[in-house]
Amino acid sequence: MNHEERFAAVALNTWRAGIERADKLFSGLTDDQLLQQIAPGKNRLIYLLGHLTAVHDAMLPLLAFGPRLYPEFDAPFITNPDKERSATPSSPEVRRAWNEVNGKLSESFASLRPKQWLEKHTAVSDADFVKEPLRNRLAVLLSRTNHLAYHLGQAVLSNK
Amino acid sequence: MNHEERFAAVALNTWRAGIERADKLFSGLTDDQLLQQIAPGKNRLIYLLGHLTAVHDAMLPLLAFGPRLYPEFDAPFITNPDKERSATPSSPEVRRAWNEVNGKLSESFASLRPKQWLEKHTAVSDADFVKEPLRNRLAVLLSRTNHLAYHLGQAVLSNK
Repeated sequence: MNHEERFAAVALNTWRAGIERADKLFSGLTDDQLLQQIAPGKNRLIYLLGHLTAVHDAMLPLLAFGPRLYPEFDAPFITNPDKERSATPSSPEVRRAWNEVNGKLSESFASLRPKQWLEKHTAVSDADFVKEPLRNRLAVLLSRTNHLAYHLGQAVLSNK
Repeated sequence: MNHEERFAAVALNTWRAGIERADKLFSGLTDDQLLQQIAPGKNRLIYLLGHLTAVHDAMLPLLAFGPRLYPEFDAPFITNPDKERSATPSSPEVRRAWNEVNGKLSESFASLRPKQWLEKHTAVSDADFVKEPLRNRLAVLLSRTNHLAYHLGQAVLSNK
């Protein structure tokens, strides 16, 4: 394993560890439990899972892996705050999307050679990337890994 | 900037972004506010800040940067759960330790050449590192960056 491969492998291991932790946490909850708030007056667990799904789905075009699978998740889970009475996708629907999106990401990650993590993401122009070469795929991966940890820290506060 | 340098720089940027976010959050709270719980029955903010400080302090020997600065933070902030009435370091003491530990880490990080991130951390033996080359400094950095995000996600839930 050369140096580039090691750098990329550690980053991917960290992402996968977060996904596994989330899978374990959310799959251990019933659909009813998903509708509970993480703390009084705070987001429901289903909102966190839907939010993570929407943000991960948006990584597909951002990393040039293809179009989004669930663009309709943005309105209920990103653009708008959690509202208990609004129509949002059901727990089974959110779970299915979560698994599908992360599966697609996993396949796409596996197709990259290590140095391709240093290529620009699609939200930065060629001209800007010359000046800011760290706006690359790797930066997106690490940022989203942190974003996942951030919301996992919240999700564990719920008392099921 | 060569490839190794870019990989290391992105990882360090992500760490720094987390530290800056934490600095902003905790420095925006009064000492009294630090004593509040993040949610009913959950850890106090000062416990999270002390916990993060203790975990970051333990990175110093783990990354071979030197001895710990605040080993006495383990008992109140890692070994034991938060207890409102137990004697813990005061808010000013915890803030000072937080800044000192992160400052020392920042200096130490700056002294590493990119490929040194791929060297083993001190909790793995030479023999095991041959078999598991990803148990390196970089893995510790990314893991602790996530740990910080995890608790930041909790800290923001408090309503000051």
